[in-house]
Amino acid sequence: MSSITHTVAESYPMNGGDDPYSYARNSLFQVSSTLPVFYNVFSIPALRVQGPRTRTAASAAKTVIDDAIAEKLDLEKIRSASDSTFRVADMGCSVGPNTFIAMQNIINAVQHKYQSQGLASHVPEFHVFFSDHASNDFNTLFTSLPPERPYFAAGVPGSFYGRLFPESSLHFVHASYALHFLSEVPAELLNKNSPAWNKGRIHYSGAPNDVARAYTAQFSRDISTFLDARAEEVTVGGMMVLIIPAIPDGIPHSCVPGGVLFDFLGLSLMDMAKEGLISEAEVDSFNMPLYATSAREMTELVAKNGRFNIDKWR
Amino acid sequence: MSSITHTVAESYPMNGGDDPYSYARNSLFQVSSTLPVFYNVFSIPALRVQGPRTRTAASAAKTVIDDAIAEKLDLEKIRSASDSTFRVADMGCSVGPNTFIAMQNIINAVQHKYQSQGLASHVPEFHVFFSDHASNDFNTLFTSLPPERPYFAAGVPGSFYGRLFPESSLHFVHASYALHFLSEVPAELLNKNSPAWNKGRIHYSGAPNDVARAYTAQFSRDISTFLDARAEEVTVGGMMVLIIPAIPDGIPHSCVPGGVLFDFLGLSLMDMAKEGLISEAEVDSFNMPLYATSAREMTELVAKNGRFNIDKWR
Repeated sequence: MSSITHTVAESYPMNGGDDPYSYARNSLFQVSSTLPVFYNVFSIPALRVQGPRTRTAASAAKTVIDDAIAEKLDLEKIRSASDSTFRVADMGCSVGPNTFIAMQNIINAVQHKYQSQGLASHVPEFHVFFSDHASNDFNTLFTSLPPERPYFAAGVPGSFYGRLFPESSLHFVHASYALHFLSEVPAELLNKNSPAWNKGRIHYSGAPNDVARAYTAQFSRDISTFLDARAEEVTVGGMMVLIIPAIPDGIPHSCVPGGVLFDFLGLSLMDMAKEGLISEAEVDSFNMPLYATSAREMTELVAKNGRFNIDKWR
Repeated sequence: MSSITHTVAESYPMNGGDDPYSYARNSLFQVSSTLPVFYNVFSIPALRVQGPRTRTAASAAKTVIDDAIAEKLDLEKIRSASDSTFRVADMGCSVGPNTFIAMQNIINAVQHKYQSQGLASHVPEFHVFFSDHASNDFNTLFTSLPPERPYFAAGVPGSFYGRLFPESSLHFVHASYALHFLSEVPAELLNKNSPAWNKGRIHYSGAPNDVARAYTAQFSRDISTFLDARAEEVTVGGMMVLIIPAIPDGIPHSCVPGGVLFDFLGLSLMDMAKEGLISEAEVDSFNMPLYATSAREMTELVAKNGRFNIDKWR
């Protein structure tokens, strides 16, 4: 234990504080989007992949989490440990309020499961760990914690592409709209001699296949790193639910729906370069570290990693 | 567990950030003071009260903590729990760097104890909780964490005059230069009809006995609240070390050495009131929430509380 590797990944925190441009005031999409969004929800021992929905994102996620806890959380294994605390971590929590809602929902579902199994007097105390990059605005997170909360709160700084918690210490891991952030932009994109050099663009949308392949490979490495770290931290009988914005199976990477935005943004930056406001080299050096996986790809990556059991499709 | 009381005490955080007036750049006294200072160091099952010293504060504290861990930490009881993490909390950590040094010292001493008992292969993973008011500058704390550290780090926002952690979840509690901050200024000081009304002063130094008595009563309540909360949180076999700036036994409260500073500050404020720069009512409404206990008083309070075993004098 004298050599924990504290991973320093590139850091893309949401805007802190509480002003008009802050995440706290601009994260309504993540709660209330009614766009068709795929939820890839992985749990132990269950992988859940949710189809397109028309109800709100938060309510769909809540239902999936409620069901996963009701059906799959192994209270017997958890209770057989003498450790009497139930520990929940939100990976990529940002500054709230979404993380507070999600954590409250999870605790309600776990409490409900204890009660429905006649274990009402054995409901554990809850310790909730809000985790995000060290550059996340934890000051705002901490001062906006719900004053009435049925848990003890802690903040955990660091990249989830590395170990953040002691071995077998977590019972429930949640990550929502977080794993589509890569740990870094694939190196090939900045290499003029690589077929994946992403000249004049800022994303793989609308780019040659080599660029998309570089993103895919980076995502694959990142997910593997994430799962390896979590496999050490999650206890036997525990559970992980990952909510990831994704594309339907079979859509080519060059046609990602949300990618149109990045196409236009890239074109605008190139126009600015032509007008001399910025240099072309600056545009070439900038790429969005975002990747849209699909249910099938994510399922395959989790299976290939082999550290977590996967639930069937829902 | 649906009704945790999250105590909202008055908050007096150290200055955040890293500028010339920040705590991070102005906390050398706490490390290097060579003034005679009493260390009241309480542990389970040991109360340690250290006499005046001429060596540095940090080095004296380190020695006391090293000895306490070597002699009193009950590895057998700790290891008999199936929970394989060793959890350390620093209460009133501020923003570093002192807290990082203290936590590293504690971990070194615990690791050394495992090794010296032939348990080198059983050294647990360490989870360190840096705790302070929610208004503490956790952003600076998190971004200045030592990159090479043999522990997982978390921040815990909230007043230590209330519960902050789940039951029996901590193995070592440390608080240094923190418990002399009262949870609030005694209410009587602001009451014109009370004999403890502290007109024209900002502290009990140089004040009538009634004022000092109000502070003493507040300190007694606060310590009792602190010990009750920690008694729930510290596990069997665990340990608590409190380092508190204190006065020698027998010194009257009105003659606290450091109080001269507050006398002068109060007089200066009254001079400003006479010049009309501020109002006398403003001076009367302001009091320093600081109290200097003595070894004997602290020993009596811990014994009266009865939740912790107390080591003999050292």
